[in-house]
Amino acid sequence: MKNKQVLLAARPTGAVEESHFKIVESDIPRPNEGEFVVRAHYLSLDPYMRGRMDNEKSYAAKAELGKVMVGSVVGEVIESRHEKFTAGDFAVVGTGWQEYGLSNGTGARKVDPKHIPLSAYLGVAGMPGVTAWIGLNEHGRPKAGETVVVSAASGAVGSAVGQLAKMKGCRAVGIAGGRDKCDYVVNELGFDACVDYKAGDLDTALAAACPKGVDVYFDNVGGPVLNTMLNHMNFFSRIPLCGQISGYNDASLLAISNMRSFLVNRIALRGFIVSDHMDLWRAALTEMGELVHAGKLKYRESIAVGLENAPKALIGLLAGKNFGKQLVNLI
Amino acid sequence: MKNKQVLLAARPTGAVEESHFKIVESDIPRPNEGEFVVRAHYLSLDPYMRGRMDNEKSYAAKAELGKVMVGSVVGEVIESRHEKFTAGDFAVVGTGWQEYGLSNGTGARKVDPKHIPLSAYLGVAGMPGVTAWIGLNEHGRPKAGETVVVSAASGAVGSAVGQLAKMKGCRAVGIAGGRDKCDYVVNELGFDACVDYKAGDLDTALAAACPKGVDVYFDNVGGPVLNTMLNHMNFFSRIPLCGQISGYNDASLLAISNMRSFLVNRIALRGFIVSDHMDLWRAALTEMGELVHAGKLKYRESIAVGLENAPKALIGLLAGKNFGKQLVNLI
Repeated sequence: MKNKQVLLAARPTGAVEESHFKIVESDIPRPNEGEFVVRAHYLSLDPYMRGRMDNEKSYAAKAELGKVMVGSVVGEVIESRHEKFTAGDFAVVGTGWQEYGLSNGTGARKVDPKHIPLSAYLGVAGMPGVTAWIGLNEHGRPKAGETVVVSAASGAVGSAVGQLAKMKGCRAVGIAGGRDKCDYVVNELGFDACVDYKAGDLDTALAAACPKGVDVYFDNVGGPVLNTMLNHMNFFSRIPLCGQISGYNDASLLAISNMRSFLVNRIALRGFIVSDHMDLWRAALTEMGELVHAGKLKYRESIAVGLENAPKALIGLLAGKNFGKQLVNLI
Repeated sequence: MKNKQVLLAARPTGAVEESHFKIVESDIPRPNEGEFVVRAHYLSLDPYMRGRMDNEKSYAAKAELGKVMVGSVVGEVIESRHEKFTAGDFAVVGTGWQEYGLSNGTGARKVDPKHIPLSAYLGVAGMPGVTAWIGLNEHGRPKAGETVVVSAASGAVGSAVGQLAKMKGCRAVGIAGGRDKCDYVVNELGFDACVDYKAGDLDTALAAACPKGVDVYFDNVGGPVLNTMLNHMNFFSRIPLCGQISGYNDASLLAISNMRSFLVNRIALRGFIVSDHMDLWRAALTEMGELVHAGKLKYRESIAVGLENAPKALIGLLAGKNFGKQLVNLI
């Protein structure tokens, strides 16, 4: 038995390619005192990973060349010398793109596979769900009757944002790419409307979908979609800035011309990262887990199979080819 | 005796010209019940006036064609049928660009000409001073030891922002146009540094002036200066967005390419207008008036003489030709 791993082999300049990764085999690790070994069931793929591949200053340490690519998995503890984790426990850990990983417990979180499906702990009841919860509750602060718009609406974060907004009595409007995603957002997730940004004339479509303007725009994409959204923001509206996937390969694509709207409408824009708010994770995770357990929060997953397919799945995610939370099944 | 008035004669498309105004004479008004007449000593000229001349949606009602141009004056009540104002009182009122104006008391504020100079009630102890106070205290929220940068630093708002920041134990850095203004900001107002945006290589100059990065950027100008500032913002920094004078003639000049900084640094940008915070005016005015009275807040004025010179003075203000608070002396 060997441990399969995906290493960061080169830093992309522009789009990610499979050649930026290297797949290797190594021995399955053994724990030292205070450590435990997790066998990953699912690897989470997330847009933030693109930033970790760059050499630039960002909000988190970059991935190291020649090392295992960074990421979170959910899996089973198979051997432990850590006082809080026992073989047979299930946990979310940041052991990266590999089948077996060693953890000292930092950032690790035990999960209950009988409460909700294991994979959900990487999505709606994990980091993306907490991102939605914090961005909406802490920065968006919508009131009942207000209009909340979210981009990448069928994705792991966006789908949760809209459903949470509906629970607060808001009008929830999604922005997504293509008819299939938009239909899913309205018919399955229960948003009030969803605008297809690939269909052309986003401005007119947003005006129709948001007849009372927009009070919260939860931005996952940046760039031209944000620029167009600025035409629709109400006085004292809020823009939690969560992601900028439209510019991850080329930051110049994020340029905004419609800056006057910030002053005229007294908009509050706030960049945030879910890890800035560790004090809120417990409350958010508990609420999101309960809502999934009760069937009140829906989610969808795109699951690639086999670690060797992780690079291709990340490339697809960055191009919007996933449909819901992107995972890699490793077992 | 006649009343001289400046009317808005045409709306500019681009730069303001004297031909957009018309000077007329009319009878001096007489008050009806509940009204009083103010003879203006000083007319305040402010960058916000450019926005009022446009036909677009903005944060305040636009100036009406053929009507007296909007603005605030400070002067003496010469006749009153209002229960709270008496002949001989001094007041700040929004009677616009005319020598004698009628007020029903809405937005009017009695002032004491023996406490501080009358003109200061239109500047550091008036709307611009309150703008500085609210933008810094409510939105900037600087802590001792942090670095606060303000653009248009020698102007009515900017000069107050930096001095208030110094009182809070911050490093205060100005941005201004030309050596004279920068020297004044450092030598007279006591800022720690001032960068001349006209001298070229603003980015390098800002890096030198802000060795620990920037925690609060109080933005009065927008456009390329804001874009460059985004290179220097620290994690969790704040940008109170108070003005966009670089784009008042052409909003496309406000475009920003450096949007990635908002997410990487988790910047909070907040457009605000001083009139959104009427609950804070009394506290702000009291504090600013006391600081002026005690000689702890310095200010400088550019004073044009005669109402007929108001259009030219506004044009100069919008081009940065004023040096300190721009007023027109009418008496």
